[in-house]
Amino acid sequence: MKCLLIIADGAGDRPCKELKGRTPFQAAKTPNLDSLASRGITGLMDVISPGLPPGSDTAHLALFGYDPKIYYSGRGPFEALGAGVKLKEGDIALRGNIATVKNGIIIDRRAGRRDSKPFEKVLKNIKITSVRGVKPIVRATVEHRFVLILRGKELSPNVTDTDPHKTGKSILASKPLKDSDAARRTALAINEFTNKAMSVLKGHPKNKGSRLKANAVLLRGAGSFLPMPSMRKRYGLRATGIAKGALYSGVARAVGMKTVIPTGATGGINENYASFARTALKTLKKNDFVFVHIKGPDIAGHDGNPLEKVKIIEEIDSMIKEFMRLRNTLIVFTCDHSTPCSRMDHSGDPVPLVMAGPGVRPDDVVSFDEVSVSRGGLNRINGLSLMPIIIDLMDKSKKYGA
Amino acid sequence: MKCLLIIADGAGDRPCKELKGRTPFQAAKTPNLDSLASRGITGLMDVISPGLPPGSDTAHLALFGYDPKIYYSGRGPFEALGAGVKLKEGDIALRGNIATVKNGIIIDRRAGRRDSKPFEKVLKNIKITSVRGVKPIVRATVEHRFVLILRGKELSPNVTDTDPHKTGKSILASKPLKDSDAARRTALAINEFTNKAMSVLKGHPKNKGSRLKANAVLLRGAGSFLPMPSMRKRYGLRATGIAKGALYSGVARAVGMKTVIPTGATGGINENYASFARTALKTLKKNDFVFVHIKGPDIAGHDGNPLEKVKIIEEIDSMIKEFMRLRNTLIVFTCDHSTPCSRMDHSGDPVPLVMAGPGVRPDDVVSFDEVSVSRGGLNRINGLSLMPIIIDLMDKSKKYGA
Repeated sequence: MKCLLIIADGAGDRPCKELKGRTPFQAAKTPNLDSLASRGITGLMDVISPGLPPGSDTAHLALFGYDPKIYYSGRGPFEALGAGVKLKEGDIALRGNIATVKNGIIIDRRAGRRDSKPFEKVLKNIKITSVRGVKPIVRATVEHRFVLILRGKELSPNVTDTDPHKTGKSILASKPLKDSDAARRTALAINEFTNKAMSVLKGHPKNKGSRLKANAVLLRGAGSFLPMPSMRKRYGLRATGIAKGALYSGVARAVGMKTVIPTGATGGINENYASFARTALKTLKKNDFVFVHIKGPDIAGHDGNPLEKVKIIEEIDSMIKEFMRLRNTLIVFTCDHSTPCSRMDHSGDPVPLVMAGPGVRPDDVVSFDEVSVSRGGLNRINGLSLMPIIIDLMDKSKKYGA
Repeated sequence: MKCLLIIADGAGDRPCKELKGRTPFQAAKTPNLDSLASRGITGLMDVISPGLPPGSDTAHLALFGYDPKIYYSGRGPFEALGAGVKLKEGDIALRGNIATVKNGIIIDRRAGRRDSKPFEKVLKNIKITSVRGVKPIVRATVEHRFVLILRGKELSPNVTDTDPHKTGKSILASKPLKDSDAARRTALAINEFTNKAMSVLKGHPKNKGSRLKANAVLLRGAGSFLPMPSMRKRYGLRATGIAKGALYSGVARAVGMKTVIPTGATGGINENYASFARTALKTLKKNDFVFVHIKGPDIAGHDGNPLEKVKIIEEIDSMIKEFMRLRNTLIVFTCDHSTPCSRMDHSGDPVPLVMAGPGVRPDDVVSFDEVSVSRGGLNRINGLSLMPIIIDLMDKSKKYGA
């Protein structure tokens, strides 16, 4: 028996005025999701805990069965893993942006979304001297993004961002969040890197003639890398993740999955769902567990666009049609969190969940949406319970006791 | 967005013979609660944990989001705060009664519900000599009630009551519940206070000619005061509690709420609900969060009177009518525990809960009672989840992760 886990990022919602008080799941025509609901078991899920808005990173960790309270200290390591960087235990990783500063004020947090690749070399060559034995590692990723890894002893993720997350502000000095030498050392290294980056970027030839010069870096999401037991080791599963976004691939790699990017994937509003379906079906042949990450609904939620969200959900529903004939496969469809269009950000509302396949006890819910599934046979479960339930339905769970 | 939280004390129940097997909520005519259920989301709530009967103090702490396992060691500090006493960290507070003893036997645990105020002065002047550095503080409250605070170093709440909770018994000696010096010191101080109280009350002029003399004190509910983060700090809420009983005001004050007593409030079976409604509507104007405590249903439950409970629930329902036109306000109605008329005491049955207002996902429950809401969209939640869910619906929750 195999498992296909599809996560529609941020697809859960609240009633929308534009949809006459319905949620996008309620308003969308979803014959395939409804068919899964009809033959499967449904319920609500608090991905982290009731009322707490999960980040996508903490949410995916929980959904894969890894407690974020143990394994999460910041997004950095997951971005770095997603970018293909090999991390060592204790590495501090941060997400970086190249940015444009004028008279000490940030005027573009993404330097016009310019590619960071041409600037990778000068950033790589920065040496940290204020703190002993710390080596910075830089990897350019997509567009303006890069990751910074600080490798050395006695470092800590308990430091603040240099990124004020707004234009019109100065770059912040990183500060220790705890009264510890490790946090002070780390903040010092981050600030030295930030200052030296401005120097080496200033006269960079690639900045010549640009209005939005890449003349500064913004750092955020410091996290410490803690190796995790793989899904192979923990559950006995050969697992692969199908995702476009580096953060999602990063979490998948952190738990020992292989990762694939479908041909033509955008990770955006307009997605190549046919390619996702083909890749998933192909990947299932050589794996026990395939995770598919779909970004679109979250973007529509952040944009506050319920009609767009309905459209994307209907497209996802069409993709799911391709999986309806799978045999001997547990199909699980859910969300990592709700991103209500009215809030334009993540919320703590529980997400809908359906599981269909051999062994599940079908309930009498016939429609897939936040309200219908609340009467489902799964009731209301916690995100950390999802994998144990999947593993049990796959008959791979181990008895506790005699 | 604002929140009005109404707690009907002990209103949950079990099927009553006198109501043809219905609970008081099922038997009562509650058009306004039913209307809230129709437009809101409903569910069951285990205020502490399934099957565990909460006290009103531990229940309210949990409902405000403060884990009683951390913040509760006895009712004393909440009674003291409710009486307006300023507490210091580590103070041991106890609830006291003046009582009548004859030949060493308690014949009235409340000295005929006489006022304790005239006896406050002599009790205040008692000095503790058996234990070093312990200062007793006494505050008379309502009727026969007073609070005793022991202020000093190395004291502990782990001591037994001197109150046997029954007439026809002797006053008990307080004993340490743990093998610790602090508990022994505290028990010693309590016993010295109890003995000296009998001496100073014996010839008190106010006892002259009374049949039920206030000639003894009974102490119970020793608790240690631990300062709590305020609701302002924790949730960013300006919060006010509307309650008549000192214990409820005390818990509200402990979490940093202001408190108001509505004009003409009785805290009894016959309540001035119109005044509660007026006070709540007025208080909502200057606050983000208003908590209203209604005592009546609990009294009817303790009295084992289902018909009275039905009547009170219908009166509460009429009060709720006044809130139906509130805009941009989340209305939450629930109970702190069940007090089944058949048991005449608190039980661990889960309580019904409804939340109505902007952002909630309406379910199809149209009647507010213990059984109907069990099919509601909230399913079954824990009391400690209530505030996080409220805060999330108010769009004040903070994301965990990126």
